[in-house]
Amino acid sequence: MPRVKRYEQLRDLLVERIDQGIYRCGDRLPSVRQWCQEQGVSMTTAQACFAALEAEGLIEARPRSGYFVTAPAHTSLHATPLPQRSQPEQRPVHVSRWKQVQTLVMGSAPHQSRHALANGMPDLRAATLLPLQRLLGQSQRDASMSHFAYDNLAGDEELRRQITLLMSHSGCMRHVDDVIITTGCQEALAIALRLLTEPGDVVAVDSPAFYGAMQMLEARGLKALEIPTDAEHGISLGALELALEQWPVKAIMVTPTCNNPLGYSMSNERKQALVEMASRYDVAIIEDDVYGDLAYTAPRPHSIAAFDGEGRVLLCSSMSKTLLPGLRLGWLAPGRYRDRALHEKYVSTGSSSTLAQSAVAEFMARGHHARHLTAMRRQYRLQRDQMRGWIQQYFPEGTRVSVPSGGFMLWLELPDGFDSIALNQRLAEHQLGIAPGPLFSASGKYRHCLRLNYASLLNDSTHAAIATIGECAKAQLVQPEDAVV
Amino acid sequence: MPRVKRYEQLRDLLVERIDQGIYRCGDRLPSVRQWCQEQGVSMTTAQACFAALEAEGLIEARPRSGYFVTAPAHTSLHATPLPQRSQPEQRPVHVSRWKQVQTLVMGSAPHQSRHALANGMPDLRAATLLPLQRLLGQSQRDASMSHFAYDNLAGDEELRRQITLLMSHSGCMRHVDDVIITTGCQEALAIALRLLTEPGDVVAVDSPAFYGAMQMLEARGLKALEIPTDAEHGISLGALELALEQWPVKAIMVTPTCNNPLGYSMSNERKQALVEMASRYDVAIIEDDVYGDLAYTAPRPHSIAAFDGEGRVLLCSSMSKTLLPGLRLGWLAPGRYRDRALHEKYVSTGSSSTLAQSAVAEFMARGHHARHLTAMRRQYRLQRDQMRGWIQQYFPEGTRVSVPSGGFMLWLELPDGFDSIALNQRLAEHQLGIAPGPLFSASGKYRHCLRLNYASLLNDSTHAAIATIGECAKAQLVQPEDAVV
Repeated sequence: MPRVKRYEQLRDLLVERIDQGIYRCGDRLPSVRQWCQEQGVSMTTAQACFAALEAEGLIEARPRSGYFVTAPAHTSLHATPLPQRSQPEQRPVHVSRWKQVQTLVMGSAPHQSRHALANGMPDLRAATLLPLQRLLGQSQRDASMSHFAYDNLAGDEELRRQITLLMSHSGCMRHVDDVIITTGCQEALAIALRLLTEPGDVVAVDSPAFYGAMQMLEARGLKALEIPTDAEHGISLGALELALEQWPVKAIMVTPTCNNPLGYSMSNERKQALVEMASRYDVAIIEDDVYGDLAYTAPRPHSIAAFDGEGRVLLCSSMSKTLLPGLRLGWLAPGRYRDRALHEKYVSTGSSSTLAQSAVAEFMARGHHARHLTAMRRQYRLQRDQMRGWIQQYFPEGTRVSVPSGGFMLWLELPDGFDSIALNQRLAEHQLGIAPGPLFSASGKYRHCLRLNYASLLNDSTHAAIATIGECAKAQLVQPEDAVV
Repeated sequence: MPRVKRYEQLRDLLVERIDQGIYRCGDRLPSVRQWCQEQGVSMTTAQACFAALEAEGLIEARPRSGYFVTAPAHTSLHATPLPQRSQPEQRPVHVSRWKQVQTLVMGSAPHQSRHALANGMPDLRAATLLPLQRLLGQSQRDASMSHFAYDNLAGDEELRRQITLLMSHSGCMRHVDDVIITTGCQEALAIALRLLTEPGDVVAVDSPAFYGAMQMLEARGLKALEIPTDAEHGISLGALELALEQWPVKAIMVTPTCNNPLGYSMSNERKQALVEMASRYDVAIIEDDVYGDLAYTAPRPHSIAAFDGEGRVLLCSSMSKTLLPGLRLGWLAPGRYRDRALHEKYVSTGSSSTLAQSAVAEFMARGHHARHLTAMRRQYRLQRDQMRGWIQQYFPEGTRVSVPSGGFMLWLELPDGFDSIALNQRLAEHQLGIAPGPLFSASGKYRHCLRLNYASLLNDSTHAAIATIGECAKAQLVQPEDAVV
């Protein structure tokens, strides 16, 4: 079992003090020596703590002056309340809403072209991605055509080795043979579901949940049992245990770190408790970790798989949120299901595309990937706060907003009576769009909620877009659509 | 309905005469003028006929002398008898043998490294592929990172347009929106099967059939109903009709053009009859056309989809046999099932990899693809005859060999008592391997059969390999394995 190191505990303590406003932006922190004395730790430990915070962009070292807080004052973070704990249907239901998801993912609707506020696109213009473009071109030039043969079914070995190193940062130690390269995280999730379920089976999910995963349940004829979920702590373990007692649940599908759409990361204690519960009820867990490497804390939180000694957690992830979605480069660490996972991979798409695998492996081996993650975590964190500020400014009174612990998605809960689907129709006139709440539910809940993407660099145009969306939302609440007609 | 043109009929007549030995290699053909008079056609038609034969590499024009036969004398083609019509189980059975397929497709077995005789790899060293390498590099250099966003779910529009043009050569006219880009033909087949079946359903298949498709049936819990199939004419329509009357068949899965592994192309009449039968019984057809563009005749034979006016044929193909398998670039023309096919595509892998799509579209638009196909058809046809000659020379008496109409696979039927799985074990000592017959059957038939790949340029080393395989086969028949023990 992974253990939280002493310096990480100290780091968490400092982050808490910054968040509580004890240290504000621009304040000088205690010196390393003072910090050692106060906490009774070694210089090495104190230095590691400050180095971690500096890597995260929360503090900066000024020569001969010490460390200063650089992050925005986080006292404002909780000025806007968090979305309330969800209250989905307490029974398994079939999923629908493909037409709405299709509009979103097909990207054919013209109103989505102005801003990528609705979908799951990362920022593709980051300077730290440029070495990848060079390496892709280079591997293309240098490769003989034999590079384009059918790949090893499990994927490029060096890339898998780099991925095991990456996974180790989440406390998850796996052998290179325990990783299978897939065509995006979507294929990893689909394979995991096919391994564990037959049509008609029940799958427990956190709720709201990623619409792509919801649609997978629909396509396979599975029923979703939506578990109440909290924007701060994650899936309700009590409600989950009740569900496991009451229903023949075949798999638990969760996004416990940098959750999409709620933004929370479950604590280590709760992650461990979830694994233990799954073990007691002998159920497998499908863990979607696709945003986990974009956590704003360094080192990133542990994955659920890190606490799994029985191989019952199937970890699914990809480079679609951290690098480039168009590479379609994902992976599955299928635990005890490896042999059947390889079979499913074979009949799903055969081997994976070879073109990008070696370039991405090289990008990781040279340290570019770690630098890129550091830069993106800092950028997304700053943009989160900027975007939350605009929402406080322009959205209707009573709007609740998530405080993502990583990634680039905000979840908004508007006052009762608000209709996110009607809002989207209105926004089309402005060539704008959001991801409406009901896409994230099997039972059509969350009509008063919506998700916003803040990955792209925020500028005046984004600012104006958020103002417009906020005003349209206000107008709808003051003068509901049906009152207009 | 597509109609065979007059010049194509003339071309077929000339091919028949060459195959019958009326015109032998080196012979001069009648002049265009003589041919016009003999057949009562226009100069234009006669010239089109000769141009087609020249494009296929069967004849060549010599200045001021006329046209000469360049292809090997095909009188020898039928000196070795064809494999006999298959006699599979006449009831639906579950598929197995994943372990043996895995050994083949994982490519991890050392004996497969010396020669690619066992798997489905095309020749990657063709000079006509080089422009693709340049275009891949170029599109890589020129592309901004926005090129790596999530793609349109159906795939790059220009590539889909080029594919509809390619499909028109098989008599199949489709709109650009009727094509969905997939991660190889494997994903196209998997999506088609998921659209049409539920676990436990029965699928009728030609037999022997591609092991990848067999494994798909296994993974989805489907039962295969293997229909007797002839190495010259294809699936038995009589046996298929009996099966449709007797069993609740949900889909017919066939490879009617340049069949893998038997090599035949069904005639237009039989293809049309198959579509009409499917219509009478209201069953969908999954058509695997992955080798169809490598037919040795130009223009290539019609696809079954060309005869389908009801949208009940789901055409599956890819660039894995014609260009590079590692691109994982396939497509599905799902007919009337388009909306559900898009949903299945979304939940299977999301959008497809963007990197190669525009480069391949450009490769096609500039005419490189047509040139490459012409070159490969000629090369593979010559190599077919070379390989068949070696087999006649080295394999046991009584060995029957297919005469592929395209592609690069030979199917061998050895005398009763021969065991292809035992042969493969023996060949491992020589770092050689073949694809054993039982992989191509759900019911473990064809133990006395094997498949050989002749795509790579044949040289002394291949010659020696075939001699070794033939000798090992002979030794096994003279002195069976169990007699040794």
